[in-house]
Amino acid sequence: MSRAFNFSPGPATLPEPVLRQAQAEMLEWRNARASVVELSHRGPEFLQVARQAEADLRMLLSIPDDYAVLFLQGGATAQQALIALNFAAPGQQADYVLTGHWGLTALKQAAPYVDARIAADGETGGYRDIPPRAGWRLSDDAAYVHYTANETIHGVEFREVPEVGNVPLFADFSSSIAAEPLDVSKFGLIYAGAQKNLGPVGIAVVIVRRDLLERAGQPRAPIFDYRAHLAGESMLNTPPTWNWYLLGLTVKWMLDEGGVAEFARRNARKAALLYQAIDGSGGFYRNEVAPAARSRMNVPFFLHDPALDAAFLGEAAEAGLISLKGHRVLGGMRASIYNAMPEAGVQALAAFMRDFQQRHG
Amino acid sequence: MSRAFNFSPGPATLPEPVLRQAQAEMLEWRNARASVVELSHRGPEFLQVARQAEADLRMLLSIPDDYAVLFLQGGATAQQALIALNFAAPGQQADYVLTGHWGLTALKQAAPYVDARIAADGETGGYRDIPPRAGWRLSDDAAYVHYTANETIHGVEFREVPEVGNVPLFADFSSSIAAEPLDVSKFGLIYAGAQKNLGPVGIAVVIVRRDLLERAGQPRAPIFDYRAHLAGESMLNTPPTWNWYLLGLTVKWMLDEGGVAEFARRNARKAALLYQAIDGSGGFYRNEVAPAARSRMNVPFFLHDPALDAAFLGEAAEAGLISLKGHRVLGGMRASIYNAMPEAGVQALAAFMRDFQQRHG
Repeated sequence: MSRAFNFSPGPATLPEPVLRQAQAEMLEWRNARASVVELSHRGPEFLQVARQAEADLRMLLSIPDDYAVLFLQGGATAQQALIALNFAAPGQQADYVLTGHWGLTALKQAAPYVDARIAADGETGGYRDIPPRAGWRLSDDAAYVHYTANETIHGVEFREVPEVGNVPLFADFSSSIAAEPLDVSKFGLIYAGAQKNLGPVGIAVVIVRRDLLERAGQPRAPIFDYRAHLAGESMLNTPPTWNWYLLGLTVKWMLDEGGVAEFARRNARKAALLYQAIDGSGGFYRNEVAPAARSRMNVPFFLHDPALDAAFLGEAAEAGLISLKGHRVLGGMRASIYNAMPEAGVQALAAFMRDFQQRHG
Repeated sequence: MSRAFNFSPGPATLPEPVLRQAQAEMLEWRNARASVVELSHRGPEFLQVARQAEADLRMLLSIPDDYAVLFLQGGATAQQALIALNFAAPGQQADYVLTGHWGLTALKQAAPYVDARIAADGETGGYRDIPPRAGWRLSDDAAYVHYTANETIHGVEFREVPEVGNVPLFADFSSSIAAEPLDVSKFGLIYAGAQKNLGPVGIAVVIVRRDLLERAGQPRAPIFDYRAHLAGESMLNTPPTWNWYLLGLTVKWMLDEGGVAEFARRNARKAALLYQAIDGSGGFYRNEVAPAARSRMNVPFFLHDPALDAAFLGEAAEAGLISLKGHRVLGGMRASIYNAMPEAGVQALAAFMRDFQQRHG
C-alpha cells in the first residue's frame, strides 16, 4: 500500500516530513535516551519542546505579547464551556453568531453558565451564507461575542473579521487557524482544536488577551481556570506531551514552508481549483454556499444524483483519494483541504471529478 | 545513544515493542493508507482501534458488564472535578481520605461543587502511613467516598480496598491500575490517567458503575457530562485518537505478557528488590513509609547525605538509569517502576545503588 490523499475533516492529513520525523524519533528523542512520549513533562527535554512550540506558534501567527497562549486538553468543545466559566459572570449575557453546526455547539456548551443569546442565525438560509452584519443583535453588556470563523460541516467561512465594538470578540478558529494572515489584536480570544490545521488531535490552543484573564468569571475547579493554566505554563496537570510535540513539528514545518502568507496563496489556489471543478460541471456537482462565504478549508459538494455517491466514494478511494464522505448532517461529499493537503492532492481530486463525470454523466 | 532505563513517574517508560509498533505504523496504519493520527475518529478503522482497546481493557481488568468505560481527555485532574459535577448534588457532602499530595488535589478540584470533607488525613504523620480505618469519619449521606489508591509522590499505597459501607467508593488509580488483580465490583468509580501504567499521556480512563450515571449531579456543560460521553461512545467530540491507539497497544502487550496476575508477580519482585536495596544499606539510603503501606509503583528514597544527590543522579544517568530525581515536594530520589519497567531495570538500579554506596559510603 502507499499513502493516499486524505481529505478527512479532522483528525486530518499531516505533512509527511512531520510524520517521518516523529517516526524516526519514536524510540529516542535526540539525546534523551527515551521517547518524547515517555519523558517527564517537567524535565528539561520536554520543557524545551513545549517552549519552542509556543515560540514558533507565536511567530507563525504573529501573536502580540499582550496575548497569552495556552495548550490544553478537551478540544475546542471543552473551551466552549470554559470561556463562559472564565469570562462571564453567572448568567451574564453572551452573544452568539451562528453560521453552522459548530456555532450552535458552542452556544450549547456555554448555555448552562451564561444567558446565551443568538445574535444572528444563518439557519433560515440553510447555513449557506453569513447573516449580514447590519442585522446582528448585539448587546453592549455582553461578556463576549462569539462566532465560528469557519464551519467545517457547512463550508461557510468568514473572510473578514467582523466589527463588534467594544465587547471582546471570541472566535472558534479550529479549522482555519494559520490558513492566512490574521490580525490577532482584533480578538479577545481565539481557540482551536489542533487536529485540523495545527497538526495532531488531543491538544487545543487558546490565545487570549491577558487583561481578560483578570475577569472573575464563575466558581470553578482549578483545572477549569485559565489563569491557573497560564501560571502553570499549561502544565497544571500532565499535558498531552506527545501531541504538543507533534503540534510543534507541524508549526515548524509551516514556518519552513514560508509561513501563513505562503499558505494563504496555496489555499487560495487549492480552493479555486476545487470550486471551479464543481461550478464548471454543469450541475453534475454542486455547492450551494454563497461564493463570498465559501470556505477555503472544507468544501462540501453534492452529486446531482445521490445514487452515484457510493460509486464516487469507491472509485475515489481506488484512485488514492480517501475520506471524502460528507458529514452525516448534510450528506453528499466533503473535501477538507487544510494547510497540510498538498496542491497535488487537490489537482488529483479535480481530475478525478472530471473523469468520474465523463464516465457517469 | 541507546535507550535508558527510565524511572520517570509519568509520562513514564513504555514497552519497547509498543513503541516499535507505533513507529512501524506511523505513516500507514494497516491498509488505511494514512497514519492513525490522521484517521477520522468516526471512520471504520479508528472505531476498530477504539473498540478493541475497550474490549482488551475490559479483559485485562475483568471489568463487569454493569460498569461503563469512558476514554476521556483532561487527565485524572479533570475527572476529580467532573466526578463532583456528575455524582453529587450541589453542596452535597463528599468524603475524602488523604494519604498524600494527590488526595488533596482531588479534594481541591471538587471543593467548588461539593461539601468536601476530610474523612482522614495522613499529613500529621508526614504521609508515611495510611490512617487506620477505624478513625475515618464517614457520613452515610455522602455522595461518595474518595481515596487515592497509590500516592506517586509520597509512595504510599493501599494494599486492600477499604470497606466504606453503602456509600459508593471512588478511587484514583492513576498510578497503580493494572498493577495487580482488582475487584472492580467493590467500587462505584475508578479513574486513571493513562500515562503511568496504561501507556500514553493525553488520555484518561473512567470505569463507572452504570446505575450511578442516573444521578442528576449538577448543572454542567454537555462536554462535562459522563452520560453524554457514554452515549457518544467517548466520541462526544474528537477524542485523542493516537493516545487511545497507544493505550490499546499497551493493554494488548499486558495481555500478551500474561495479564495482571503476571504483573502482580513481577511488581512484587521488583518492589522487594528495591526496598531490600534501601533497607539493607545500613542507613545510606532510607525510605520512611510504613512497610505495609509502601508503594510497589513509586519508591521514594533519600541518601543519608543530600550533598551526594547530584553525584547520585549524574552517575546513575551515566549508568543508563534516568529520571530518578524525587518530586520537588519531597526532594531526594524516586524510582517509578510501573508495569512497563522490566525487572532488569530494577536489578540494574539496585546494583548501581550498592556500587554507589561502596564508592561514596
